[in-house]
Amino acid sequence: MKLKAAVVGLGYWGPNLARNLAGSGDFALAALCDLDAARLERVGAHYPAAERFTDLDAMLARIKPDLVCIATPVASHHALAAKALQGGAHVFVEKPMTMTGAQSRELLALAERLGRKVFVDHTFLFTGAVAELNKQVTGGNIGELLYIDSVRINLGLFQPDVDVVWDLAPHDLSILHHVVGVAPHSVRAMGSCHSPSGQADVAYLHLDYPGGVSAHLHLSWLSPVKVRRMIFAGTKQSIIYDDLEAAEKVKIYDHGVDFDVKDLEERRRVLVSYRKGDMRAPNVPATEALAVELQNVAAVLRGQANARASGVDGAAVVRVLEAAQRSLAQGGALVPVESA
Amino acid sequence: MKLKAAVVGLGYWGPNLARNLAGSGDFALAALCDLDAARLERVGAHYPAAERFTDLDAMLARIKPDLVCIATPVASHHALAAKALQGGAHVFVEKPMTMTGAQSRELLALAERLGRKVFVDHTFLFTGAVAELNKQVTGGNIGELLYIDSVRINLGLFQPDVDVVWDLAPHDLSILHHVVGVAPHSVRAMGSCHSPSGQADVAYLHLDYPGGVSAHLHLSWLSPVKVRRMIFAGTKQSIIYDDLEAAEKVKIYDHGVDFDVKDLEERRRVLVSYRKGDMRAPNVPATEALAVELQNVAAVLRGQANARASGVDGAAVVRVLEAAQRSLAQGGALVPVESA
Amino acid sequence: MKLKAAVVGLGYWGPNLARNLAGSGDFALAALCDLDAARLERVGAHYPAAERFTDLDAMLARIKPDLVCIATPVASHHALAAKALQGGAHVFVEKPMTMTGAQSRELLALAERLGRKVFVDHTFLFTGAVAELNKQVTGGNIGELLYIDSVRINLGLFQPDVDVVWDLAPHDLSILHHVVGVAPHSVRAMGSCHSPSGQADVAYLHLDYPGGVSAHLHLSWLSPVKVRRMIFAGTKQSIIYDDLEAAEKVKIYDHGVDFDVKDLEERRRVLVSYRKGDMRAPNVPATEALAVELQNVAAVLRGQANARASGVDGAAVVRVLEAAQRSLAQGGALVPVESA
Amino acid sequence: MKLKAAVVGLGYWGPNLARNLAGSGDFALAALCDLDAARLERVGAHYPAAERFTDLDAMLARIKPDLVCIATPVASHHALAAKALQGGAHVFVEKPMTMTGAQSRELLALAERLGRKVFVDHTFLFTGAVAELNKQVTGGNIGELLYIDSVRINLGLFQPDVDVVWDLAPHDLSILHHVVGVAPHSVRAMGSCHSPSGQADVAYLHLDYPGGVSAHLHLSWLSPVKVRRMIFAGTKQSIIYDDLEAAEKVKIYDHGVDFDVKDLEERRRVLVSYRKGDMRAPNVPATEALAVELQNVAAVLRGQANARASGVDGAAVVRVLEAAQRSLAQGGALVPVESA
Repeated sequence: MKLKAAVVGLGYWGPNLARNLAGSGDFALAALCDLDAARLERVGAHYPAAERFTDLDAMLARIKPDLVCIATPVASHHALAAKALQGGAHVFVEKPMTMTGAQSRELLALAERLGRKVFVDHTFLFTGAVAELNKQVTGGNIGELLYIDSVRINLGLFQPDVDVVWDLAPHDLSILHHVVGVAPHSVRAMGSCHSPSGQADVAYLHLDYPGGVSAHLHLSWLSPVKVRRMIFAGTKQSIIYDDLEAAEKVKIYDHGVDFDVKDLEERRRVLVSYRKGDMRAPNVPATEALAVELQNVAAVLRGQANARASGVDGAAVVRVLEAAQRSLAQGGALVPVESA
Repeated sequence: MKLKAAVVGLGYWGPNLARNLAGSGDFALAALCDLDAARLERVGAHYPAAERFTDLDAMLARIKPDLVCIATPVASHHALAAKALQGGAHVFVEKPMTMTGAQSRELLALAERLGRKVFVDHTFLFTGAVAELNKQVTGGNIGELLYIDSVRINLGLFQPDVDVVWDLAPHDLSILHHVVGVAPHSVRAMGSCHSPSGQADVAYLHLDYPGGVSAHLHLSWLSPVKVRRMIFAGTKQSIIYDDLEAAEKVKIYDHGVDFDVKDLEERRRVLVSYRKGDMRAPNVPATEALAVELQNVAAVLRGQANARASGVDGAAVVRVLEAAQRSLAQGGALVPVESA
Repeated sequence: MKLKAAVVGLGYWGPNLARNLAGSGDFALAALCDLDAARLERVGAHYPAAERFTDLDAMLARIKPDLVCIATPVASHHALAAKALQGGAHVFVEKPMTMTGAQSRELLALAERLGRKVFVDHTFLFTGAVAELNKQVTGGNIGELLYIDSVRINLGLFQPDVDVVWDLAPHDLSILHHVVGVAPHSVRAMGSCHSPSGQADVAYLHLDYPGGVSAHLHLSWLSPVKVRRMIFAGTKQSIIYDDLEAAEKVKIYDHGVDFDVKDLEERRRVLVSYRKGDMRAPNVPATEALAVELQNVAAVLRGQANARASGVDGAAVVRVLEAAQRSLAQGGALVPVESA
Repeated sequence: MKLKAAVVGLGYWGPNLARNLAGSGDFALAALCDLDAARLERVGAHYPAAERFTDLDAMLARIKPDLVCIATPVASHHALAAKALQGGAHVFVEKPMTMTGAQSRELLALAERLGRKVFVDHTFLFTGAVAELNKQVTGGNIGELLYIDSVRINLGLFQPDVDVVWDLAPHDLSILHHVVGVAPHSVRAMGSCHSPSGQADVAYLHLDYPGGVSAHLHLSWLSPVKVRRMIFAGTKQSIIYDDLEAAEKVKIYDHGVDFDVKDLEERRRVLVSYRKGDMRAPNVPATEALAVELQNVAAVLRGQANARASGVDGAAVVRVLEAAQRSLAQGGALVPVESA
């Protein structure tokens, strides 16, 4: 039997959720919810089977959905998700999951108490490219992970209420969280603001992980060209993931550096040898990430799979954003990331 | 009449100096100097008109050169350049000019006292690409400079005695010094070392300039691909300088962002408008930079031009490297750059 | 008042026509027509205001549309368009317009007799990129046009009933017809077939135009990579139009070759000088071509503009295809293109 | 013992031959020969051990070289090579080997009679990239070879005495001859001339091989951009060889098309299935091709290897050029290639 799903918030992303739920074999799109009646009308016209609501409580009471997908501005995530959980539904929340780590913690505790599940929409994890990247890194092919560099820059779009870190970094942080598997212990964030809004439009994040791995993010709304490129450098292989490449998004370089310490007394005498090998770009499936993600959500709700992006993961990303925000305000000071 | 020039140090770069001096209309290559007699022999065979020396003092005494070009390891720059100045010659020193700001200061004071000139070999400034870049930025076409990002990464080559900052950053720092025109007031440097040498092989430098401009450098010996790319973002135009492009090294984007503050009370209500215009890649001459540079040196010595890369510029770069080194050692702490 | 439009054929392209007509300020989407009732239902669900028909005659009789858009397989274009014209409508026909030059001629004569108009859907002409290209070439910036080379290759999709020439060449031929302004006088076509279908899957067309200009097309369903790239070489400038570039589809190179004949007796002594200038990529608007095209159609029907892609243009393209087909069958023999 | 080698002709390519012979472990550079005494002096200065001659006969009589390398204009190849053979030397001749197939035949017959060997300088065959390409194609990885497309275009350099076909096609034809392994049976060549010289500056060659494989070449001196790109499409894999790529010159695509004929009566019902697999760019060594080539020549002269580019191969390329020239003069008529 299909699970009953509702979408709350029909701005930029909500219609994609509605389309994927309506086309899914797992879910029935039972309800649409938005404060803006005109928008509700316009989107709703494509889904005659879904009831329309401007009030969340009314929707929950009448539909009793299995899953509520929340695609509203981030400031409202916590309150709406809490309401949905209390109404008996599982929730699927847009990223970033909440405004603060404290909100995330509360939400997870509430869900725990009510026996409901929280999912976070870390869509990128469900692309063929990131799945391949993750397989290579966690499967050990690249050897020991040395460092990660990410560039996510373009011209605009300036947001009225968030800075470039809250706008762009959740993508990178969700990928890093998934692939590295542990949270960074500290962050430095350096940014600058060139508009009268007071919000940073260029920022650099430097994350230090346990075990000496570091990751570095370049985020910008002021670049003349669009770049989406991550480097994962390892001892045996290195990977470049370029999301703007049409056909070869993931390139695996069979290159490496070997160090041979000849004389332990004198650490300076290190023999370095380079290995330049083949490059390989595995074919990655081009299925829509959101469809794959909703399959995972359904499988979890049916007890058939583990969540690839649970509320715990969403909370981990929020804690890094929070630390970055604090570091940014302090001009790049080292800020520890709170633990779960 | 041609100026008498000598080259000291015939390792990697010295032979290029010798070739350009020998082919120059301004200089006569009068002497070659190296401690390694076999190397002296090998390189010297191509320049029968140049006398060969293993001793700098002997060379200075016998040849009395107008210009001594020093292309030895950086640790010896200060001592050799001082000797050459005392021997009555002007000096042209490889970059980085010295190991410390104090050494640079001493050298400049000595030259001042002796009425001799110090040049630093900031070769990149004499490429057609950087000349074009400089013209665009300082000529005001790009409007107000907002921020600069540079990526200079590749696989190796690990150096036995310097880290990735001292190896790669002098290129960026000499370009930044030339184009921005002022020194940064502070630096943060974050790096990591993955070899047993203890020297950083990946590093990020964050430079803050007076007036709010910042520059960010990504330097790495651990990248599977080679990248040489700088972004100069301005209010009216932005420029990308990619040194690995065969034909279009400098691309000027006529893009911009305009902010219109409607309500001064409420700074949040900023209207943002984007302008997407043409891209233009000016044709830049492909003449050898070193030849152009030596023409500038000769013109300065003849009182016909100003130095594009004087010892003062070399010292400015060394002071940033010194501050970066200190920040690196302190895990990214903010370190002020000494003033001249 | 809006013009009444109908779409006939709801396969691959028809739904795009329906969507653009429905969203247009010039047209009302009054009817949809398809032999397949299920397809009619599926597409029609999005356009409740449009009546649905499986029979063209019934539609024409009841709706009396101003414009009938025909997006059925090419073999049926002639018969359906003739019927629509006789039913009093103007017609807008998918490319290629008909199977033969004779069919095109008949259709144009019929329209002439009935005082109706025929448009052909040469969509590419309405892209920002081709409009810019056309402006540069016909505006004289590139000097005298020397030659044109086009590559349109990819892996598949094999068609059951047409070869690679009829599938891919109409795009190039419509652009060439528009930009060059005259028809080629002869064609050579060389192709090969690697499937059991007997249809060419790789082909090369060589077109000779009056005045010495030639154009060359590489068409393939067997290339591992997708390429969409045209070169227009001129005496003063040359242009590369690459439809797969995200941001810089049209690049204008200010390069040229000048010939100076020193000695007219001895034509061999030609002094050649090269000019390497700037490259410029004008910003081209990214509006949907089909929307712009339908605006042009409406403006023509209202007597406010000339057709950018009329039936006469459609017929010209069909005559070249016909000649190419004949040349292909004769292994590359020179085949003259029929005149209008 | 080293073989005694002489270089005849010190224009563009001769100095590269001299440098490689002088640096070789197999050859001693014993003589340099050029009609231009100043040029002889200039180049000879770098090789004090080589005697200098303005007269070939004098050189042959005095030096008695084992190998004479001929790097003069193509019109003189036949006469000079014949003289060198008669003087007792083996010959290594620049490509194209001779002006006509008849000249090639004569030269080979003469060498046969005198028991001397003829090598042709098909340098590209000795690059790591073409060796890899050849291994993939002839080793069967790509399945059955379907077709080959090559683009070799740039701006100039116009030659005073040869057209674009004789200038550029020898590179492609030598690679095709090596990789395909058989000669094409016929050629069509279409070209145009835009200078007063009367020589084609743009040309297309269409070659048909036994067994249905065809190859197509686009050659131009009028392209604003430089391209060096060959596609080898096969049933199992396809290869793109791009000589201008810095690091990934050979890309192997594991793509393919499979045809399944369901109904032999009705050939039209062909099921097509596509396979999109990984791409792989093997690491190819970057050693200088000419050095590898001269090692092969030495090994052949010592009876230790077979020639990778013998006079027989040079003659095969000349016969295709000759047929192309004839087809060009006849406006693209089908011209059979003479057999050996």
